[in-house]
Amino acid sequence: MSVIDELAGELSKLPGIGRKTALRLTYHLLKQPRERSIRLARALETLAERVHPCQTCFNPTEDAECAICRDPRRDAAVLCAVEEAADIGAIERAGEFRGRYHVLGGRISPLDGVGPEDLTVSELERRVAGGAVTEVIVATNPSVEGEATALYLQQVLAPHVARVTRIARGLPVGGDLEYADGITIAQALSARREMP
Amino acid sequence: MSVIDELAGELSKLPGIGRKTALRLTYHLLKQPRERSIRLARALETLAERVHPCQTCFNPTEDAECAICRDPRRDAAVLCAVEEAADIGAIERAGEFRGRYHVLGGRISPLDGVGPEDLTVSELERRVAGGAVTEVIVATNPSVEGEATALYLQQVLAPHVARVTRIARGLPVGGDLEYADGITIAQALSARREMP
Repeated sequence: MSVIDELAGELSKLPGIGRKTALRLTYHLLKQPRERSIRLARALETLAERVHPCQTCFNPTEDAECAICRDPRRDAAVLCAVEEAADIGAIERAGEFRGRYHVLGGRISPLDGVGPEDLTVSELERRVAGGAVTEVIVATNPSVEGEATALYLQQVLAPHVARVTRIARGLPVGGDLEYADGITIAQALSARREMP
Repeated sequence: MSVIDELAGELSKLPGIGRKTALRLTYHLLKQPRERSIRLARALETLAERVHPCQTCFNPTEDAECAICRDPRRDAAVLCAVEEAADIGAIERAGEFRGRYHVLGGRISPLDGVGPEDLTVSELERRVAGGAVTEVIVATNPSVEGEATALYLQQVLAPHVARVTRIARGLPVGGDLEYADGITIAQALSARREMP
């Protein structure tokens, strides 16, 4: 296999990049100064070598704890539980939330064989069991699996924390939190309600 | 700048990949085993270090000459001039052409400041001036710049080679007349041939 096919093969494993796009990207890089490919390679290596989940919230970081967990101005009494680390960026861009996060690492989905034990649910339970947390905002996606995950979290967390809230259904049902605009996310946060 | 932003920044320099897609790809890689990122990085480095233009036809290769130029079964008397190396793959997949190639490295475009001296035109002239080439098929894209490049090549190459031909323009096979643009239909009409 040629080097070109090899790179195109690796690129086509990325989501949303098919064989033709992968080849187009490869030929694009061949036309660029080779420093471009080297810089991209270095960034990938650094990502693989230095980034790991935050020991507290599982947000990817280069340190033991992520920047948000280390920030003393962020309210440690309010946690926002999200499916993926990418969702944190979306919520941060909305500029509404001043608490801290917990990355679940997915959502409960029996059809895909994903149960609570595959997520960081027990770690969230342990964080909350300390007693310092007054509210957990469940910000899983407004999908069937996201709602099921929210219900499960509510049952598990209720004994430990005063309030388990769910972001409002201001988000379009079936949508993806990562792609929602900041105003929608801000409204969904401020309209959050107690889970019954 | 964080490692995540750095990789997303490098990825977003690729064509067709915006800031959000770049972030999505980065977070996707973070969820994969780190070997995936390492393999992609290695493929990029190998591309940057080992691949360079074929000394004869400018098709990217790891050797002095590309596999097509080295293949004795390929007819050295017929050259197909293409804008980009990626076009070779498209023509090879058609399985019709048994000659060799010449990668121009773009098309003449005065608006973009691209002249013949920025392409491998003089190298093509030198290849053809040897006298062993009987036909040059100009397979630049059927765009305004592609046509201008074809006309220029015809003028430059005519003194050296018996035939300078242009790939046919017309309706794409499997296409629909109803949705074809007027220029394509006009050319398909004026280039009509007797039915055998």
